[in-house]
Amino acid sequence: MSAVMADEGKTLGDLGEREVIRRLAKLVPSRDDVALGIGDDAAVVTTGRHGPDLLITTDPLIAGIHFDAAARPQQIGHKAIGRTFSDIAAMGGEPLWTAVNLVAPAATGVAVVEGIYEGLSALADRYDVAVVGGDLAEGPVLEVHVFTVGQVGRGSAVTRAGARPGDVLFVTGELGGSRSGKHLDFEPRIAEGLWLREAEWATAMIDVTDGLATDLRHILEASGVGADIEWASLPVARALQGEADAVPRAMTDGEDFELLFVVHPDRAAALESLWPESFETRCTRIGVITAEKGELFGVHESGARASCGARGFEHFGR
Amino acid sequence: MSAVMADEGKTLGDLGEREVIRRLAKLVPSRDDVALGIGDDAAVVTTGRHGPDLLITTDPLIAGIHFDAAARPQQIGHKAIGRTFSDIAAMGGEPLWTAVNLVAPAATGVAVVEGIYEGLSALADRYDVAVVGGDLAEGPVLEVHVFTVGQVGRGSAVTRAGARPGDVLFVTGELGGSRSGKHLDFEPRIAEGLWLREAEWATAMIDVTDGLATDLRHILEASGVGADIEWASLPVARALQGEADAVPRAMTDGEDFELLFVVHPDRAAALESLWPESFETRCTRIGVITAEKGELFGVHESGARASCGARGFEHFGR
Repeated sequence: MSAVMADEGKTLGDLGEREVIRRLAKLVPSRDDVALGIGDDAAVVTTGRHGPDLLITTDPLIAGIHFDAAARPQQIGHKAIGRTFSDIAAMGGEPLWTAVNLVAPAATGVAVVEGIYEGLSALADRYDVAVVGGDLAEGPVLEVHVFTVGQVGRGSAVTRAGARPGDVLFVTGELGGSRSGKHLDFEPRIAEGLWLREAEWATAMIDVTDGLATDLRHILEASGVGADIEWASLPVARALQGEADAVPRAMTDGEDFELLFVVHPDRAAALESLWPESFETRCTRIGVITAEKGELFGVHESGARASCGARGFEHFGR
Repeated sequence: MSAVMADEGKTLGDLGEREVIRRLAKLVPSRDDVALGIGDDAAVVTTGRHGPDLLITTDPLIAGIHFDAAARPQQIGHKAIGRTFSDIAAMGGEPLWTAVNLVAPAATGVAVVEGIYEGLSALADRYDVAVVGGDLAEGPVLEVHVFTVGQVGRGSAVTRAGARPGDVLFVTGELGGSRSGKHLDFEPRIAEGLWLREAEWATAMIDVTDGLATDLRHILEASGVGADIEWASLPVARALQGEADAVPRAMTDGEDFELLFVVHPDRAAALESLWPESFETRCTRIGVITAEKGELFGVHESGARASCGARGFEHFGR
């Protein structure tokens, strides 16, 4: 029996989200103007001879998976559009235009749908983004699918693939505690992402959506490197401080929507001194890129170094 | 009690899809570079000083609403992406890049999801469109949300608003019978839409998704005009010929994905003579635009003229 045959009858739950996406990405056609397709925070396509590159990203937000009954409609809208803005920020880009597919049961109150639009419109307005498309369809549960197009200087998008051994790892804001509410009212780090790209501080970047451990592994895989994280340096969210599992939760909670990025070692100190002049958001040095391909280690204050097997959130429960 | 108060507690089912979208469209922010926002087949945004305009459109495809258990995965993928291509075609544009959000229960077979991607990839490949984004999320039913970006010459997108009294109404292909399978394997009229726009034949255009009667009304509303349709001229689908309700079904079945457009009366005969040199697809003169704002009449072979109240498909059952 061939390997292909052996997979017949397998479900999404059997294989897991990332393995399925890896397979689907092999099936799709590309074009010469696609600089980066499926597999980073956003796709990058080139325009014209001198135009900027466009960034294209989509995110689904589904009741019972990404939010629960306690979420206010404005928060649902904020999170739905904010996730796409965070993707654009992680490429060092600027969001411009958004379209929305809203799915809802017929019995949904119009006020709920209007509340969702108020939430997403408020965030769009804050970053001068136009909501140019809106479709509405009937379905079994409330869902908001947001599609955002952004731009970035030609050839200058910051991908996951630029990390080199010796580079210093930084993360914005605080980690962990998304379940205590942050995942519904985070601020996408658009200004920070633009700043990090414009002066070429960040040479690899991702936004933390599935937990620091998982998202850092994406950088390690794309760049062919490893990393050492200093446990004591992690900017643990206030809600977690003093908790026995604060460090593992900061590594795996997910939906922090902070930027995780690397900077050349010669420029790391300059970044640390200039950052506070531009931003109130924290920016913390948390570790270093190593040549140990695919290896993620946690370094204790004692100097003890242990392989980090922690995994973040993945759909379909794997 | 104010009008606003009176609406409190109303559901999507109470108001219907189009009224809700009308309300939502008032809540969203715009930008100076948005030439056309929510309300046409696709949004139009301008780029740079000399670049082409971009077209942005989204369509949801939901199990139980847009397809049923008899649909093959390849057909689901074809329809999901084809709907967005049809939107781009109706603006006279060319699709370039697509992103897909796929929602499915964890028990869905990987082969189903791969089949959907095969179907959408085949159509994308035929029109040289790149699939640049693909997200996958868990949800209660199978759904495919497709977002497509296309382009059109600067300022040249064909909207719904350009119809003038005296213009001749045309429709491509055949109407009705979508339920007998056409809605799953239609060909988006991309080449036809490009041709109609490039030589400025079409001055208003829409694709027939909710039934000719409903979609024609969108042109009438946007253009501030009326229309007379010659019943006998309608290109009724072969599957309906001889049926007693063939004409009403051709007017209202929906999901024909044909182009409905108007041409200046001085050029209508030239269009009819040139069309067959370029296309095998039929193109049929079906009526004329009138100055009777918002009025849609059917004209019988006897010359009898009757107001046409027929409505096409609308979500949430109104």
